[in-house]
Amino acid sequence: MATSTIPETKVREGANGAPKSTQKAGTKYVYSFGGGKADGNGKMKEELGGKGAGLAEMTNAGLPVPPGFTIQTEACREYMKQGGVSAEVDRQMKEALRTLEELQGQKLGSGENPLLVSVRSGAKFSMPGMMDTILNLGLNDESVESLAKRSNNPRFAYDSYRRLIQMFGSVVLEIEKAAFEEVFDSKKKQKKAKLDTDLDAKALKEVIAEYKKVVKKHTSHDFPQDPHEQLVIARDAVFRSWQNDRAKHYRRINNIDDMLGTAVNVQAMVYGNLGETSGTGVGFTRNPAIGTKEFYGEFLMNAQGEDVVAGIRTPVHISELEKVMPDVYRQLHEITTRLEKHYRDMQDFEFTIQDGKLYMLQTRNGKRTGIAAVRVALQMVDEGLISKEEAIFRVEPNQLYDFLVPRLDEKNAKVEVLATGLPASPGAAVGQIVFTADEAVEKAGHGAKKNPVILVRAETTPEDIHGMEVAAGILTSRGGMTSHAAVVTRGMGKCCVAGAGDIHVDEKKREMQAKGQTFKAGDWISLDGTTGRVIKGKLNSIPPKADDPELLKFMSWAEPFRNMKVRANADIPRDAIQARAFGAEGAALKKLLPLQRKDFDGVFRAMDGFPVTIRTLDPPLHEFLPRREDLMVEIAVLEGTKPKSPKLGGLRKLLRRVEELHEFNPMLGHRGCRLGITYPEITEMQARAIFEAAVAVAKQGVRVYPEVMIPLTATLKEMANQAAIVHRVAQEVFKEKETKVDYMVGTMIELPRAALVADEIAKEAQFFSFGTNDLTQTTFGFSRDDINKVLPTYLAEGILKQDPFAVLDREGVGQLVKMATERGRKTRSNLKVGICGEHGGEPSSVEFCYQTGLNYVSCSPFRVLTARLAAAQAAASDKLKVEGGRTK
Amino acid sequence: MATSTIPETKVREGANGAPKSTQKAGTKYVYSFGGGKADGNGKMKEELGGKGAGLAEMTNAGLPVPPGFTIQTEACREYMKQGGVSAEVDRQMKEALRTLEELQGQKLGSGENPLLVSVRSGAKFSMPGMMDTILNLGLNDESVESLAKRSNNPRFAYDSYRRLIQMFGSVVLEIEKAAFEEVFDSKKKQKKAKLDTDLDAKALKEVIAEYKKVVKKHTSHDFPQDPHEQLVIARDAVFRSWQNDRAKHYRRINNIDDMLGTAVNVQAMVYGNLGETSGTGVGFTRNPAIGTKEFYGEFLMNAQGEDVVAGIRTPVHISELEKVMPDVYRQLHEITTRLEKHYRDMQDFEFTIQDGKLYMLQTRNGKRTGIAAVRVALQMVDEGLISKEEAIFRVEPNQLYDFLVPRLDEKNAKVEVLATGLPASPGAAVGQIVFTADEAVEKAGHGAKKNPVILVRAETTPEDIHGMEVAAGILTSRGGMTSHAAVVTRGMGKCCVAGAGDIHVDEKKREMQAKGQTFKAGDWISLDGTTGRVIKGKLNSIPPKADDPELLKFMSWAEPFRNMKVRANADIPRDAIQARAFGAEGAALKKLLPLQRKDFDGVFRAMDGFPVTIRTLDPPLHEFLPRREDLMVEIAVLEGTKPKSPKLGGLRKLLRRVEELHEFNPMLGHRGCRLGITYPEITEMQARAIFEAAVAVAKQGVRVYPEVMIPLTATLKEMANQAAIVHRVAQEVFKEKETKVDYMVGTMIELPRAALVADEIAKEAQFFSFGTNDLTQTTFGFSRDDINKVLPTYLAEGILKQDPFAVLDREGVGQLVKMATERGRKTRSNLKVGICGEHGGEPSSVEFCYQTGLNYVSCSPFRVLTARLAAAQAAASDKLKVEGGRTK
Repeated sequence: MATSTIPETKVREGANGAPKSTQKAGTKYVYSFGGGKADGNGKMKEELGGKGAGLAEMTNAGLPVPPGFTIQTEACREYMKQGGVSAEVDRQMKEALRTLEELQGQKLGSGENPLLVSVRSGAKFSMPGMMDTILNLGLNDESVESLAKRSNNPRFAYDSYRRLIQMFGSVVLEIEKAAFEEVFDSKKKQKKAKLDTDLDAKALKEVIAEYKKVVKKHTSHDFPQDPHEQLVIARDAVFRSWQNDRAKHYRRINNIDDMLGTAVNVQAMVYGNLGETSGTGVGFTRNPAIGTKEFYGEFLMNAQGEDVVAGIRTPVHISELEKVMPDVYRQLHEITTRLEKHYRDMQDFEFTIQDGKLYMLQTRNGKRTGIAAVRVALQMVDEGLISKEEAIFRVEPNQLYDFLVPRLDEKNAKVEVLATGLPASPGAAVGQIVFTADEAVEKAGHGAKKNPVILVRAETTPEDIHGMEVAAGILTSRGGMTSHAAVVTRGMGKCCVAGAGDIHVDEKKREMQAKGQTFKAGDWISLDGTTGRVIKGKLNSIPPKADDPELLKFMSWAEPFRNMKVRANADIPRDAIQARAFGAEGAALKKLLPLQRKDFDGVFRAMDGFPVTIRTLDPPLHEFLPRREDLMVEIAVLEGTKPKSPKLGGLRKLLRRVEELHEFNPMLGHRGCRLGITYPEITEMQARAIFEAAVAVAKQGVRVYPEVMIPLTATLKEMANQAAIVHRVAQEVFKEKETKVDYMVGTMIELPRAALVADEIAKEAQFFSFGTNDLTQTTFGFSRDDINKVLPTYLAEGILKQDPFAVLDREGVGQLVKMATERGRKTRSNLKVGICGEHGGEPSSVEFCYQTGLNYVSCSPFRVLTARLAAAQAAASDKLKVEGGRTK
Repeated sequence: MATSTIPETKVREGANGAPKSTQKAGTKYVYSFGGGKADGNGKMKEELGGKGAGLAEMTNAGLPVPPGFTIQTEACREYMKQGGVSAEVDRQMKEALRTLEELQGQKLGSGENPLLVSVRSGAKFSMPGMMDTILNLGLNDESVESLAKRSNNPRFAYDSYRRLIQMFGSVVLEIEKAAFEEVFDSKKKQKKAKLDTDLDAKALKEVIAEYKKVVKKHTSHDFPQDPHEQLVIARDAVFRSWQNDRAKHYRRINNIDDMLGTAVNVQAMVYGNLGETSGTGVGFTRNPAIGTKEFYGEFLMNAQGEDVVAGIRTPVHISELEKVMPDVYRQLHEITTRLEKHYRDMQDFEFTIQDGKLYMLQTRNGKRTGIAAVRVALQMVDEGLISKEEAIFRVEPNQLYDFLVPRLDEKNAKVEVLATGLPASPGAAVGQIVFTADEAVEKAGHGAKKNPVILVRAETTPEDIHGMEVAAGILTSRGGMTSHAAVVTRGMGKCCVAGAGDIHVDEKKREMQAKGQTFKAGDWISLDGTTGRVIKGKLNSIPPKADDPELLKFMSWAEPFRNMKVRANADIPRDAIQARAFGAEGAALKKLLPLQRKDFDGVFRAMDGFPVTIRTLDPPLHEFLPRREDLMVEIAVLEGTKPKSPKLGGLRKLLRRVEELHEFNPMLGHRGCRLGITYPEITEMQARAIFEAAVAVAKQGVRVYPEVMIPLTATLKEMANQAAIVHRVAQEVFKEKETKVDYMVGTMIELPRAALVADEIAKEAQFFSFGTNDLTQTTFGFSRDDINKVLPTYLAEGILKQDPFAVLDREGVGQLVKMATERGRKTRSNLKVGICGEHGGEPSSVEFCYQTGLNYVSCSPFRVLTARLAAAQAAASDKLKVEGGRTK
């Protein structure tokens, strides 16, 4: 067996026999990495794929990564054309393998210490659908014995071999998985084993024998005992998998070129469970929760990565490693410090120690909370690691939300995580468990909350609302990010962990089980809505700090770049005051009802010196009426029970009126400026309320700039009609009150037609504000209320990358936004243009607004901070690009 | 009084006193017409306004029009700038008046035979909102006596004077109308007069005295007795009226330049009621109903135009005039023959004979039925009056519908028109009156219609449907073009006259009153749904003739120009056969239901050799379910009456499912390709049905070209997803059946986003078909089902010129159609593009489709002929323009 000659296989025969081989002289097909240097580098994703380029980069960075080699994508392209690889590929692979064996002091699948490898596909773009990983390649009837001896763990060795045959059989040889599962299950039955792990070495040996029969039966060939043959067959299977249906489907829906091809990565296996000088762990170079500079992580000796994740053994703090293996600890500490310097960001790393030798399996920029992100960015500038300009981009705008909600104080606290659910609504909540809404009300009361409670339910329903209102937080065991609990709590700005499948809620017994423990009503738990963690006991919570000095310092670096204003959607003075505290530079009122004079007053005052946009009445008329179906039921019931009731006549009359106003598609109905045109007195009354309030506060010294916004225009004439009313009323009020204020009349652009004729509409409109919610509805023909019937399939099929109501659809809706802005400004060069849909607080949409040249975005008060950073990043990115890239 | 000096008035003083007068030396302000020649001509609309140019044209054409003069628009512009006209205008007017007096042998408002004139505004564009006509100007206390004597009709003279004061007072002097009405009404009360005409000459003299007091009271001036003063004041009032609010509003919504100004027309009054040598009449140069070449019209001696219209006296046939006044008859005949030659079209004229002298009051191209239009066009080509190319444009495409419905045979028939209602649904119907739907069914039966009936009702309701189905025609006394009766009958292709207000239907008594006569069930009437006439008795009806030889000849001239195909929307074989008979060159199926294999068969056969487009399933899912509100009522009633009913559980379950599928805006919901993506088996099943049918008929020698159309796409990926299914199934079927057919897969463009990304979608779509109904809904944000709440106001306010669902909105929706066509063809140069919304049968929309370069339009079978002509006209117009205008 001990030969490194690569044998011919049936797969390769065709290719080698083929005269049309287009093998290019001098082409480098195989790139080695290991021993501190790599043939390739991190930029060669085209040739090495994302994974291969990453391995090269890590090796070059001096990391002790398990060595190996990458067969580049050109070999795959040749394989597609010719049905096999050229002899040169085989030659180079043979050479790379020899280098690898020398580096490891091992031989592939032979000797006392056999070299075992993993084989993985890796294209330029991460791409599910292709062949998955093959582990433990190199094992055969002989080398499995060596592994058993070396690891002193025969069960582990036979299980590894068993897994190889199964993976190789199903993935490479394309034998149905069921054929192997049948064997395995019947063995478990025979041995009365409940879990896979209940099968001992002897049983696994029997399974291996059966598995080999399966392979023989399905392929008419024995499972290849020659490790080199295993390797060649596996490599070619990776190339073939590039063209399987799932991969093609994925490329089609993701617009990935079919001709790119995939690379193949062959890498030495390392094991953390080969004895007491082996181990495995994970860590961060800084604290990812609060951003403090500390070496942070945990590990287990004589264990595999799975053991850390499975939670059967409890990992210990990384600092303990110093006591067990001081050299390895120092090396790890030194490496990760270097890593941070190399990647110039906080790292999240995985390592394995095999026989006292440290291997880095993976390192990547670490995920962190918003608070940690800000703090780490500040520290790194202080340390001279990054520039202030770079620091701006080290915080995701959405993360700033963390500063606006309470969070758990985990310092010096014992944190026992009971389960991790979905981070359905951010923030933190600490309270006593209750299992029903009534219980919540009883215990928490409506007044001063002496008894904070957490409402725990399998899932919530509209009947739970009264309980949800008084609870400090909500925990459910079922439901996703769009479940009732998730949606309602986000609306309330209340912490929620949803769909925590690892807890079991028994509402009848009024009990909750988690991690084998039982919790009853009155027990304390703590929720972290930002991470989804459910924590045992009563932690302290830290109140939100919008004026956190580190946040302010960070924003003071970003803000000078921003040249797009951020306003807040605020319908009541309280929101406007809040928004101004978060830095809003104007407000937009949408839910205008007649005669809410005092709300105008309040918002005008809160936004002293800034413009306030006020939309005239928009909701469909029918929203003010009783529901048609309720009336029908009431009438039918009365007719059956009290047919002579005097009430019936009135109800029937009301129903007739409601039927008259009923709309099949209220979204496309009698609303917006259509109401103001058919009932001009509505616009008139509202304009009067606006200007009377404006003049009144102006007389008291408030600098007020009302912008009256006409909704749902589609034509110039609609705009002209409504603008004429507003201007007339303004002049009337100014005359009556003998005071003038500066004001503007503009329109919402929320229909495709408005965007198409924006040049016309701008003749009468002094500003545009894009209502991107409605514009998305009409451009896509998607009702926002109904899209959830379609969206899950669309996202799963890759037809949409994201919910267009969450992230602005640049290709379609964005085209209209751009068109309207350009055409509007062609007519009126100083046209003020903004956006007031909910996209105004979403970072990618804000970036698009910046690129399109909008003057402002408007968003909910709690998104103002996010929008400010997103706008600053967009501008900074632009500016720094112009200045020659984001340099250090 | 007998002076032609124009006095200075207070209005003019300011202007004359002003030093800034910009009077241009040599400017011709006043244009005379009369005596066979005019200073201006028909092309001078800019200067003379539409009306003035027309009067000049008619005069130049040799018509004896009442002479007069036009003060051109420049004078109005000066008036606007300076607040008055220049002295030169007054001078020219004085001169023109003198010419007029000489021509008429009369003096303005003096002498035994005083000259009386009308004063009218007349701008370049017809423009309501400006000052209306002032008649009888020149009457005063003196001339009214002359008129009384001359007309031998003092009542007529005083009534004319009374009207002058009232018109002059309200329109020129701006006194509230109510002030005059009060006087008039109290006089009627005093005299116990029911009608205005019940007041005799004496009473009217008393009214005049009172009216003069009103003028004095409101203006502190007497009603001007000087006719020249009357004239100047009236003229200036016309100029001022250019700037009143109504006129400004009208110009604003119609985009008419404020600086155009209006002209003023002053024209001699002529009266047909000055004795037995006076008279008045109307006529046509050819028969407007059936197109025969005959002198056609009616007249009354010693009468005013109002008398002809009012129907109190019965007019006599024009041929009788020859007996009464042979010279005048000959002159009229000669003039109208000349008119036809001059205008090169059939004329509709009005004339008055005053004291034996013929005056032509008006002539215009005559309205005619479609059948007459075709026949007249053919005749005129035969007569060498027009060219074939011109003839093509002499028929409105919509008029061809007349060939497809039955019509009344009025030749040799006694036609007594009982009333004229709205032509709600074209065609003809002859039958016995019934007053209820049940009666209709009883009498007409469902089988062979032995007893044709006309269902007569005040208005119809959905409960009448069974009666409407069996009736030959429907007549209602109430309701408009969109009333229940109108809409339902148009859908049925059945004749209907709606809203005939002059008939009274007493449903209780089962009687109909009209023209003082009473009609009972069983009486015969005839309806003309094309003109709206209700005719007494049983006329014969002529069946439709789509193969009328004159129609075929006419189409054979038009068709060679046409280069855009016309297809038919046909869901069943019967419609496809019908459409093919009307010249359809392909079909589109929309109401595709699973497994309707035999309908495909039939349509494929009917369209042998032509493409058949088949849309995959589109209707919203909920259309297949019971109505939510009905279920709710049923459950509520059961709960109240039989709470233990076993049915309840099932109903509640059904309601839950219906609630799940309920959509707030079904138009924007789970439909179109969204269904085919979430349930791919639906698309698959349909594709299979289509290809199996296609292959089956192809085997029998039918040339079949199926085009599979994916509805409601918004993204390339949706298209790719569905196209992949269709292509796969096609290959499967071809393999199974061992036969191939040519086919295409394309998409409907019916969402704005699809138009915006058409270049992308065309990568997968082999053809586009615009669904302009839905595209209009989403582009405008107007639900078609709900637009009627808004549309009446929008049309009245001029915000929309027409219903965008009837006539394609070129500015907005059209922009998307153009964009999608261009972008689609950029990707795929041979992309086939058509339209299958209902606009495909509307002539202006068809013209737009031609201009946009579409390959075809598709419309309902009965619109095919219309679309063919519209497409031919559009192409011919283009071609002839290129060749240098539509020459004779």
